[in-house]
Amino acid sequence: MKLNIAVLSGDGIGPEVTHQAIKVLKAIAQEFDHSFRFKEAPVGAIAIDQTGNPLPDDTLQLCEASDAILFGAIGDPKYDNNPSAKVRPEQGLLKLRKSLGLYANIRPVKAYETLLDKSPLKENVIKGTDISIYRELTGGIYFGEKQLSEDGQVASDLCEYSREEIERIAHLAFKAAQSRKKKVTLVDKANVLETSRLWRKVVTELAKDYPDVELDFLFVDNAAMQMILNPKQFDVILTENLFGDVISDEASVIGGSIGLLASASVGNKHAMFEPIHGSYPEATGKGIANPIASILSAAMLLEHFGLYKEANVIKAGVEKSLQLHVTTPDLNDNFDHITTSKVGDFIEDFI
Amino acid sequence: MKLNIAVLSGDGIGPEVTHQAIKVLKAIAQEFDHSFRFKEAPVGAIAIDQTGNPLPDDTLQLCEASDAILFGAIGDPKYDNNPSAKVRPEQGLLKLRKSLGLYANIRPVKAYETLLDKSPLKENVIKGTDISIYRELTGGIYFGEKQLSEDGQVASDLCEYSREEIERIAHLAFKAAQSRKKKVTLVDKANVLETSRLWRKVVTELAKDYPDVELDFLFVDNAAMQMILNPKQFDVILTENLFGDVISDEASVIGGSIGLLASASVGNKHAMFEPIHGSYPEATGKGIANPIASILSAAMLLEHFGLYKEANVIKAGVEKSLQLHVTTPDLNDNFDHITTSKVGDFIEDFI
Ligand SMILES: CC(C)[C@H](C(=O)O)[C@@H](O)C(=O)O
Ligand SMILES: CC(C)[C@H](C(=O)O)[C@@H](O)C(=O)O
Repeated sequence: MKLNIAVLSGDGIGPEVTHQAIKVLKAIAQEFDHSFRFKEAPVGAIAIDQTGNPLPDDTLQLCEASDAILFGAIGDPKYDNNPSAKVRPEQGLLKLRKSLGLYANIRPVKAYETLLDKSPLKENVIKGTDISIYRELTGGIYFGEKQLSEDGQVASDLCEYSREEIERIAHLAFKAAQSRKKKVTLVDKANVLETSRLWRKVVTELAKDYPDVELDFLFVDNAAMQMILNPKQFDVILTENLFGDVISDEASVIGGSIGLLASASVGNKHAMFEPIHGSYPEATGKGIANPIASILSAAMLLEHFGLYKEANVIKAGVEKSLQLHVTTPDLNDNFDHITTSKVGDFIEDFI
Repeated sequence: MKLNIAVLSGDGIGPEVTHQAIKVLKAIAQEFDHSFRFKEAPVGAIAIDQTGNPLPDDTLQLCEASDAILFGAIGDPKYDNNPSAKVRPEQGLLKLRKSLGLYANIRPVKAYETLLDKSPLKENVIKGTDISIYRELTGGIYFGEKQLSEDGQVASDLCEYSREEIERIAHLAFKAAQSRKKKVTLVDKANVLETSRLWRKVVTELAKDYPDVELDFLFVDNAAMQMILNPKQFDVILTENLFGDVISDEASVIGGSIGLLASASVGNKHAMFEPIHGSYPEATGKGIANPIASILSAAMLLEHFGLYKEANVIKAGVEKSLQLHVTTPDLNDNFDHITTSKVGDFIEDFI
């Protein structure tokens, strides 16, 4: 198979971890006789520094012309603590999601057998956890109108959802549940929010098309609690943009490290693959960033194109690296000399 | 001291747990020679059943005329799964908060030594945790304009904050931090939301008045993760309404049971005290509901009026009941015959 892959490695540890994913994909191409072509383009704080724009036109065009996008991370503290900055790295990511119509963000959360002891949660609580979170990604309060009054006294953000925006991701979630444990949990705040009540209504109606799938509901506050009390109760979680952001980051504690969690952002035409972790500026250049989330994002990319065998080889390589403790310091108390690129090398060699 | 206390015990397990708190307050009154007068009034689903209104005028008037309010819980599943219900129990609670100007919800989160093994989190992670969450309670997306288009295709909720709304709760949080570990963590989503950027700006400015208090910032997604990874890092958490709802319910897992967590909702004129748990309809009338959150709410009520000695006696009674395993089944694998009212009796006797 021939694939043109846009590489947007971004800020902080983005480049170092993405580099490992590319290494791994190149090994796969060679081993399985595919042709993957990589083209890099700037996004985020680094793009602001270079061009003044967190998502330069050239970058967007490259993404539109590519079969898939491998994304690193964005964000820089110099913008976070400057509430009046007009241009921010995150705008690049949000515009990319919106422009490419990447409306569904899919985040698998699994408790790895070999890492059960790394989690802050007790082993019996997390053992066997296998969740797939479907987070709506191009709607809600992220994209609604934002206002700041002229005198700077009042700010507002509008959260808006249409039936159509809810339906298209709900279909994906129900289909995913059909090949899993056949359960969808809608996370919302329908006791307070009008948008949540629309979600509940639309999803309840649409569930009738999937009689083999059980649907239940949780308020987001309760869901945040249940995720820790008993994560095994979940199969597919379906939720809106902001709730999905919070719940999926929270769920990362189950795996023992946010450095393990990959995600796919898909739309009707485009697909992007990225770690769920951020740019982790404190770690930049130190060789301590865990590349596994990025490498597993590459595996999700392959699955997206039906290359399951190839994806499985990567996943097996990851499992092996975890088993043999060839892991970065976040997962490894004993060997702090195992760097980001050594983990990449190990998985490359495995392939 | 003479206190007129309005009792709004509400739905589900609300009445049974509130009843224990009243018992305990009566014991305190007798022991310390105070005069507490209790007047009950309906709120929530039960008020809808009786009057069609989740917050009848009489109830609101009683609250306005009282020195403090003891609140139980509200909510009924018959409304949750009916997105088109025009009247809902939660509206009663929200209107009460708004009408009485209860803008600050204060939720203490503590890991009890005797319950360390009850938490899904590992002992070394939670041991020593002592957090006070300051959640804004009368603004944000809870109270902004809600719309549903006539054709039912589009819904929206507006999140709005003014500088003044932010300042008044921020002052409370900083003052609280001064008599604690002198650290305030603002939880927001300033990389996406305009309202969060206003929060960050206002709180940063106001922090200059409290040079002895350290201020730091966390994005809400990261905060949801840090709360589980390392809750001991927190002292006072300051946050907006919806984020506070999610983060504080999540934080309840640290104590081993949401049945332990009390809260105070205060404004300039009024103050209300309530468990953070909900109406838990499945448990209603079974005698299994944990009354400790309600009893500790009564202790917060006493503290609010400067009755620290009295509050400490209640807290000591609670600690004793936990030590001796005089607790409801959520905290007790061995004795499932210890009912809600037996726990109340024990603490009453202790006093
Ligand atoms: C960087 C930020 C805008 C982004 C989000 O909130 O969506 C990130 O947290 C994520 O989850 O991908
Ligand atoms: C019942 C509900 C409206 C309420 C809220 O979301 O504020 C509850 O969850 C709480 O935290 O007190």
